[in-house]
Amino acid sequence: MIKALFSAPIDKWDKYEAPLHAAFALKGLQVDLSPDHAAEDVDYVIYSPHGPVSDFSSFTKAKAVLSLWAGVEKIVTNPTLTQPLCRMVDAGLEEGMIEWVAGHVLRYHLGMDAHIVNPDHHWVPAVPPLARRRKVTLLGLGALGAACAKTLASLRFDVSGWSRRPKDIAGITCFSGDDGLKEALERAEILVLLLPLTTETENLMNAERLGWLPKGAFLLNPGRGALVDDEALISALDTGHLAGATLDVFREEPLPQDHAFWPHPKVTVTPHIASETRAETAAMVVAENIRRSEAGEPLLYLVDRTAGY
Amino acid sequence: MIKALFSAPIDKWDKYEAPLHAAFALKGLQVDLSPDHAAEDVDYVIYSPHGPVSDFSSFTKAKAVLSLWAGVEKIVTNPTLTQPLCRMVDAGLEEGMIEWVAGHVLRYHLGMDAHIVNPDHHWVPAVPPLARRRKVTLLGLGALGAACAKTLASLRFDVSGWSRRPKDIAGITCFSGDDGLKEALERAEILVLLLPLTTETENLMNAERLGWLPKGAFLLNPGRGALVDDEALISALDTGHLAGATLDVFREEPLPQDHAFWPHPKVTVTPHIASETRAETAAMVVAENIRRSEAGEPLLYLVDRTAGY
Repeated sequence: MIKALFSAPIDKWDKYEAPLHAAFALKGLQVDLSPDHAAEDVDYVIYSPHGPVSDFSSFTKAKAVLSLWAGVEKIVTNPTLTQPLCRMVDAGLEEGMIEWVAGHVLRYHLGMDAHIVNPDHHWVPAVPPLARRRKVTLLGLGALGAACAKTLASLRFDVSGWSRRPKDIAGITCFSGDDGLKEALERAEILVLLLPLTTETENLMNAERLGWLPKGAFLLNPGRGALVDDEALISALDTGHLAGATLDVFREEPLPQDHAFWPHPKVTVTPHIASETRAETAAMVVAENIRRSEAGEPLLYLVDRTAGY
Repeated sequence: MIKALFSAPIDKWDKYEAPLHAAFALKGLQVDLSPDHAAEDVDYVIYSPHGPVSDFSSFTKAKAVLSLWAGVEKIVTNPTLTQPLCRMVDAGLEEGMIEWVAGHVLRYHLGMDAHIVNPDHHWVPAVPPLARRRKVTLLGLGALGAACAKTLASLRFDVSGWSRRPKDIAGITCFSGDDGLKEALERAEILVLLLPLTTETENLMNAERLGWLPKGAFLLNPGRGALVDDEALISALDTGHLAGATLDVFREEPLPQDHAFWPHPKVTVTPHIASETRAETAAMVVAENIRRSEAGEPLLYLVDRTAGY
């Protein structure tokens, strides 16, 4: 019997226990899964950064550490970790992100808020332009950005994207580099931020670059909170330069009750739900990696410890 | 010079004049377009039911009547109409419908309203299920229904559809007939009505059939107002059996200010914007038919006067 330690906050146990058992059964694995195995008995550590394990030196038998998180920046530099480390690449996370982005782009495109909240019962049959006349720009064309761009293009939006290095994606107008950024922003009636957070992207959407957006633009941030200068965003909304913003990620989460985003009439806060790993799909990735390890096959999403991801 | 009479309400002239001129130019046609030509000079009548022309007998030269409306039930039985009649099949209408349906399905799927209207600043990071676990049912699998079904399936929703006669659409679970209707409704977490209005479909969604929906279901009606029994719907919302409804079409439009839909907290009214003919795309259909007629080619969307459509 394979022993797998579930080392994540206890609320995750309730979410993952059944999906992991189901995934093990589907892969034909006999796994003794518990949050309480003794370290020296453990074959696999299923890991998240806020769980109990931070010292891996006593896991002498462990064949791999399987992260439930896509980002491994909190563990990759841990000197006690000598076992192979796999990061999570979760189809469910990608699907959820696509749904959040497509939903909120369509919401702004269709002007839904004026119908959802319409206390004076205005009947104004103003038909929105077709999606093919609506310019949407994504900053970031990694796996998530490219997937969202393709879905928006399939909904016939006029989609462009920007990335630091040049990319070529069918059906998407691709911009890159510093010059490309200005051009990409100047055409963005709806802007979606899906960049990683680095020293280069922190506060990327500052007052100057928010000013490059066309008047009346909408901003969606399902990426990282610190991509946006909060005060510059509020100022751009207050002057009317931006028409609205929907934010899923914040510098501090939960978003503090006294933060100016909460009461702002042009800001919608969603509680970090766009990019959540889904237990059902993530459990299948964990099970597949245990199956591979037991069969002597190469692990999926093995982290290169020198590159850091 | 071809003479085309624009016979539609005068507010449509403002919408259509420029798109029609642009479409004629694209098709290489020299057209004298006016809302005021003498009947006996007219080569083509561009027609909508609420315009000035209802007697076609003096249009002795007219080679065709080109409807701006998809439905021709108001003209097809007109005994003075001896000219060929073409109905409108507008790609813009289909695209707009797809966008409205996809947008509002995603809105309910993601639970957006609780974020858009959140006066107490609740941070509840409850992640919705993935679209692949969300069952959406469309009643009506004509051109619009099938197009919406395919788009929802491409967004990975678990889509089923119902039509009176059996259909087979890749990726869609198709039901038909009376037995199929109950099965289709019983699985509909989100129900979309895209049926034509006939004596058989009037009040189709009455108290009994609303009761077949699972508890907590959402209803979208971008089809025809009279498909739904208004009072039965309000009752199903009040008991909590239905969680919400978004309605784009009504028995009387504009929806009267004293109608119970307006103040209902679970009802969203959109002002008949889902299925609007778009001037830009419709003008191209008109121009293409004039081009075909002048070139002696068969007309598009020619109405079979005996069948009535």
